[in-house]
Amino acid sequence: MTETSSRSARSERRRSRRAAAGGAPEQRPFAQPRLLHAPTEIISADQVEAIHLASLRILRDIGMSVLDPETRALYARAGATVDGEMVRFDPEMVDELIVTAPAEFTLHSWNPARSLHVGGDWLSFGSVGSAPNSADLDGGRRTGNRHDFQNLLRLAHMLTSIHFLGGYPAEPVDIHPSVRHLHATFDMLTLTDRVFDVYSLGRQRNIDVIEMARIARGVSHEQLDREPSLFTIVNTNSPLTLDTPMSHGIIEMARANQVTCVTPFTLAGAMAPITLAGALAQQNAEGLAGLVLTQIVRPGSPFIYGGFTSNVDMQSGAPAFGTPEYWKTAIIGGQLARRYQVPYRSSNTCAANAVDAQAAYESMFSIWGAVSGASNFTMHGAGWMEGGLQASFEKMVLDADLLHMASAALDPLVIDDDTLAFDTIAEVGPGGHFFGTPHTQERFRTEFYRPMISDWRNYETWAEAGRPEAAQRASHLVTAFLAEYEPPPMDDAIRAELTDFVERRSAEGGVPTDF
Amino acid sequence: MTETSSRSARSERRRSRRAAAGGAPEQRPFAQPRLLHAPTEIISADQVEAIHLASLRILRDIGMSVLDPETRALYARAGATVDGEMVRFDPEMVDELIVTAPAEFTLHSWNPARSLHVGGDWLSFGSVGSAPNSADLDGGRRTGNRHDFQNLLRLAHMLTSIHFLGGYPAEPVDIHPSVRHLHATFDMLTLTDRVFDVYSLGRQRNIDVIEMARIARGVSHEQLDREPSLFTIVNTNSPLTLDTPMSHGIIEMARANQVTCVTPFTLAGAMAPITLAGALAQQNAEGLAGLVLTQIVRPGSPFIYGGFTSNVDMQSGAPAFGTPEYWKTAIIGGQLARRYQVPYRSSNTCAANAVDAQAAYESMFSIWGAVSGASNFTMHGAGWMEGGLQASFEKMVLDADLLHMASAALDPLVIDDDTLAFDTIAEVGPGGHFFGTPHTQERFRTEFYRPMISDWRNYETWAEAGRPEAAQRASHLVTAFLAEYEPPPMDDAIRAELTDFVERRSAEGGVPTDF
Repeated sequence: MTETSSRSARSERRRSRRAAAGGAPEQRPFAQPRLLHAPTEIISADQVEAIHLASLRILRDIGMSVLDPETRALYARAGATVDGEMVRFDPEMVDELIVTAPAEFTLHSWNPARSLHVGGDWLSFGSVGSAPNSADLDGGRRTGNRHDFQNLLRLAHMLTSIHFLGGYPAEPVDIHPSVRHLHATFDMLTLTDRVFDVYSLGRQRNIDVIEMARIARGVSHEQLDREPSLFTIVNTNSPLTLDTPMSHGIIEMARANQVTCVTPFTLAGAMAPITLAGALAQQNAEGLAGLVLTQIVRPGSPFIYGGFTSNVDMQSGAPAFGTPEYWKTAIIGGQLARRYQVPYRSSNTCAANAVDAQAAYESMFSIWGAVSGASNFTMHGAGWMEGGLQASFEKMVLDADLLHMASAALDPLVIDDDTLAFDTIAEVGPGGHFFGTPHTQERFRTEFYRPMISDWRNYETWAEAGRPEAAQRASHLVTAFLAEYEPPPMDDAIRAELTDFVERRSAEGGVPTDF
Repeated sequence: MTETSSRSARSERRRSRRAAAGGAPEQRPFAQPRLLHAPTEIISADQVEAIHLASLRILRDIGMSVLDPETRALYARAGATVDGEMVRFDPEMVDELIVTAPAEFTLHSWNPARSLHVGGDWLSFGSVGSAPNSADLDGGRRTGNRHDFQNLLRLAHMLTSIHFLGGYPAEPVDIHPSVRHLHATFDMLTLTDRVFDVYSLGRQRNIDVIEMARIARGVSHEQLDREPSLFTIVNTNSPLTLDTPMSHGIIEMARANQVTCVTPFTLAGAMAPITLAGALAQQNAEGLAGLVLTQIVRPGSPFIYGGFTSNVDMQSGAPAFGTPEYWKTAIIGGQLARRYQVPYRSSNTCAANAVDAQAAYESMFSIWGAVSGASNFTMHGAGWMEGGLQASFEKMVLDADLLHMASAALDPLVIDDDTLAFDTIAEVGPGGHFFGTPHTQERFRTEFYRPMISDWRNYETWAEAGRPEAAQRASHLVTAFLAEYEPPPMDDAIRAELTDFVERRSAEGGVPTDF
């Protein structure tokens, strides 16, 4: 069988599967939306400066607890004061060191069509990352495993509003931790063509995965060193602590000119002050400490300012997401990132246990904050549930639809003689109808976004159809998308090189399970 | 029994009911949010002007079909050209006549604490209006009736994020049309204390209800003439037609210095061009024709610019709401209203049949558009389903919670030494926890908005509790709020006068059923 006939047979199988499943809907093509209007800003420039100054005071007078001696030495050489584990920063030092961070950069995928612009008015949305559990309507909730991990990757690959992989969508706990990064990265690189990340859980993992990114792209070490091709999320241990695996992650990534996104997990009332101003000052202090480290290691290395300040339910201590308070910090986080002229990361969060109205409205408050606040890099864009404890297949499709809608909303409106349609309005006249006009007929297939989930049938027809709710419709779409899944066409030699690398490093035992 | 002991007994009964039902949650106090940051604007000033000029061209070269001779005569006397039913407007005439409309005004309730600021940076949210059906989870969907009508009013009265009544929440079809306006208005005035409206369905209804507003407020005709105290929504018959009851409504309301909100129902692809620019030009033309009429009748009479342009599902012809296209027109509607320096009306819409994720996300796109677009007067803020065909009890509570959240998000952030919390951050130190600090303890009851619906329990606890979804939680809240309902304390003499008026006008036969 030739390659061509094999492709043809595959295409035929796909069509059959599509017919059987009802078919996956058409989507908008993969494209990053741009925020062409002014971002929403809810505090004044003076107030931004007040938060900035408060965070500099925190760094000068309290300091960060840095657990790794090598990292402390790096800070010290750049001018910080080290006292035991505490590192304190002169405000001028901070101000001077952070200016080298780039305002924008390209984050390269092995498929150039999936490389991302990060920064400026470019937005991007990632899939859910790091959930310990996965769930779907049919199978219920279970501990993360490689089967679900792979299917969530396949689903993310099919959804064109997902621009990057925000980590392991659900943790594949059935892969041993010593080699998990190798096999999971192999899956991410071969089941999808999206930009991806590495968990900073010990230096060697970063080194291994940076090499896999290089192999997947088929580029030299020198080219990779010029071209950021993967990212890592560093969560400081709030309040004010940077642990060793995280600081090693920053060091290895910055050294290799790869992307570090420092995101303090500053829940107001728990790991940060209950007042949002205080929580944001602390977020900013921890973020600046991370930004400084990247620029000490390698001036000009790419950095993303992460904001993740939310609140807790003060009655139970449970974290809350997609709240009014979360919305505010999402917006202000963007204002702070723009103060430092670095790209901004927010998230699509919710605390819901079911894919119900709560899941939708908490996610919508998050998306509103992220989009209006000019989040260049929105983590957990699709599939996040339960405050991050669950990756949901249905929620991934629902969110992907919301992200398509947000992107469609950002499409610039064309206003010209043709779209103002004076002649058509004149032709139809008072009391007429526009459906049959050429102006309508020429455009009716493409003028509006067609949601994947929304059910716009009238009540009677909907009731006769068994009253399907949005979560059930999403469930059908999960089946349809997975039925039509095909892996991205990776070069055979590259795939073989990746396989060899994973086999060799696994045979060497991977990494010590240091966590 | 004295009045005092009667009150005490009532209060005791309320406490018993509250305990039985689990109790209604505490809410934010009744207060209008203010948009203190810049509204979102997605088209340029030049593009706003292009839409403005296109609408002036429509009014000059095509014109409006005005079905009522008296209205045509009013337009003609002001300088318009009348040709049969068609009325055409010189652009200079339009520009000159509209400048007298006020940018802001107070809309008075009989309870002064519920009077509204309309215009500027003040926002307000109304209850669902004009649904032919009502529904709740327990009783299903049914034709609107007075029992549900009254209970929806009671529920709206209990929800402090609902600032005004946006019409009959569900149509009380069991009241004869000839006297429906009398009895329904009596219910609206006595079961709630919110600002309310009159349906412009024939001149005499406007006259009757204006008089009832006067009686309820206990003011003279002269005072009512100075103080807008009710509003009407005028939907032009798009495209480009103004029918007789609607134009009579405008005339009677403007003459009495009461509020007219002209809202063209311009569904792109059906009653307006499929292109949003064209649909907005048509919306604007029809809106300006209404605005001009109010100012011809009485210069300076209060007017609200209504935007309601949405799209249709071009496959089925079904109207769609809460779409990306709807979001855009909600934002641009605000830009146009500000161009004319008049208050702006948008809506909280959705097309969902169930209180599911779709209902929530379509409403959230609508609320995002309304709030970011500076809608001063958001109709259908709580309870709208099925594109307006259903008033849902559960959706009313869900939306009220979303409106509380939007309001909380707009609360200005306090940034000062106290909220920046340097001392507390220093005291807690790296690795500590903020929960036990005095800074937290002083604030934990009031610092964050506590949603009524959101379930933040962990998955296991939630699963043990029977996996309640948001709609079910809303259903319990409906019961709890209705159990605690008490009518607002209207003066006995005023209530008697209203009763007399309704009885007298009903005995006279009300109005001819001209529709």
